[in-house]
Amino acid sequence: MLNIIGLGLSNERDVTLNGLAAIRRSKYIYLESYTSILSVPLSTLENLYGKELIPADRETVESGTSILSHAAADEVSLLIVGDPFSATTHTDLVLRCREHNPPIKVKTFPNASILTAIGATGLSLYKFGQTVSMPFFSENWKPESWYDRLKGNSELGLHSLVLLDIKVRERDWGEMVKGRVVYEEPRYMSVRVCARQMVEIEEGRGEGVCERGRLGVGVARLGAEDEKIVAGTLGELCDVELGEPLHSVVVCGRMHEMEWLFLREFAVDKEGFDEAYKERGYAE
Amino acid sequence: MLNIIGLGLSNERDVTLNGLAAIRRSKYIYLESYTSILSVPLSTLENLYGKELIPADRETVESGTSILSHAAADEVSLLIVGDPFSATTHTDLVLRCREHNPPIKVKTFPNASILTAIGATGLSLYKFGQTVSMPFFSENWKPESWYDRLKGNSELGLHSLVLLDIKVRERDWGEMVKGRVVYEEPRYMSVRVCARQMVEIEEGRGEGVCERGRLGVGVARLGAEDEKIVAGTLGELCDVELGEPLHSVVVCGRMHEMEWLFLREFAVDKEGFDEAYKERGYAE
Repeated sequence: MLNIIGLGLSNERDVTLNGLAAIRRSKYIYLESYTSILSVPLSTLENLYGKELIPADRETVESGTSILSHAAADEVSLLIVGDPFSATTHTDLVLRCREHNPPIKVKTFPNASILTAIGATGLSLYKFGQTVSMPFFSENWKPESWYDRLKGNSELGLHSLVLLDIKVRERDWGEMVKGRVVYEEPRYMSVRVCARQMVEIEEGRGEGVCERGRLGVGVARLGAEDEKIVAGTLGELCDVELGEPLHSVVVCGRMHEMEWLFLREFAVDKEGFDEAYKERGYAE
Repeated sequence: MLNIIGLGLSNERDVTLNGLAAIRRSKYIYLESYTSILSVPLSTLENLYGKELIPADRETVESGTSILSHAAADEVSLLIVGDPFSATTHTDLVLRCREHNPPIKVKTFPNASILTAIGATGLSLYKFGQTVSMPFFSENWKPESWYDRLKGNSELGLHSLVLLDIKVRERDWGEMVKGRVVYEEPRYMSVRVCARQMVEIEEGRGEGVCERGRLGVGVARLGAEDEKIVAGTLGELCDVELGEPLHSVVVCGRMHEMEWLFLREFAVDKEGFDEAYKERGYAE
């Protein structure tokens, strides 16, 4: 059988008691590490669990071959930072367990996710629209599908959570043409890079979705002891420095007075924040 | 100081190790029980924690008086079923801790929430629009604001999570006019009642948002051992019986093929489900 276990957002002790018991029962334990990361190294998890962990990159999880062959015979756990359903690859794995002959039993262990932890900003979770992913731009590749999603939310007055790109175990193209398999250093997008990409596309399209004066929030290491929350215009967020990963961004929709009161505590510039809130139509 | 601790969705062992340590350090521990419920009684939590719990109804949490006066002097925990930010009353409590003189330190412990556990249906969490609340109708009070929110999501092709009304510690009006304080039995809305209310309003408005043929999902006790997931048309959901609370509903938007494959396993009528998916414009 296969347990898919959410580890929560920050450290080794964010696992639930139910999740920990399942890990300790398991013969093989895989740790997925390409969609999100904890603030502690793998060895810290191993020490608490008293078990060895098998790091699972995208190929291992998406092919599923070794995970499924183990899970057909023994109890196996796949550990996911955040919540088990935070990425669609895990849904795909469940489908393949169902199709396996005989079917492999699957149990999921829910946990905290950035999708709800973002409530720490004071913005109401019930007023978020669809979630948006922001990819790293390159010189020749600047996709804009996120812009249309932001626009859809914005027209309904909703907030948008923007999840920032993570590049882990990416092949180095320069080495690849020489026939060598070399992986690039992991890269995690910062709030600053995200805000700059938003403003860049807005300048081209001009549909008023994420102009420099629009209010937003940058968060870093949400759920950890050293979490950071900074509110301000997207122009201000272009210059913030929030340190280590992971970062996320919210583009604000209309706000209830209580949301505004809560969020202004985190403002880069409280006066400017209040002015924007009152004069630019954010107030409900 | 005040800890606001998410307990997760199902039983006493869905608490995180970090949350449990904070509970055990606390002098006073309040259990909020009017926005959601666990599948185990209060005494089961007390036995695991080795601590006495103080049940906190809406008045206790919203007035905040006793919680704040204790938290000003000692370490206090407020336990929330699901995630700490699942209701706005908790945001309000944090605001009052900030305004207290001297300010009271607040730490939140994130956990699983229905907002992400709904991923167990196979529907992608990134394709949900704003969350909708469905209140109990009475003969003279049938609010429709949820209909407009469903419509907004629907026009963007998004899924909608519908949270169902809970009535806990409601004053009995018949007794109230006699000057007596008597509370009604707790009531929890079922998938069936929600689907019927939707179809009723649709019949009046006719804007094609939640007609009987629309695909939806009913879930009960998500995250628990006996969770139930049923997919079908809203007409079919008008007649399902999913047992004990809590229930929630999803109104489906456009689906990726993988979402459809995953969800059809739960269909009341697989053939009808496939037909609706293919012929009524759900396919992406």
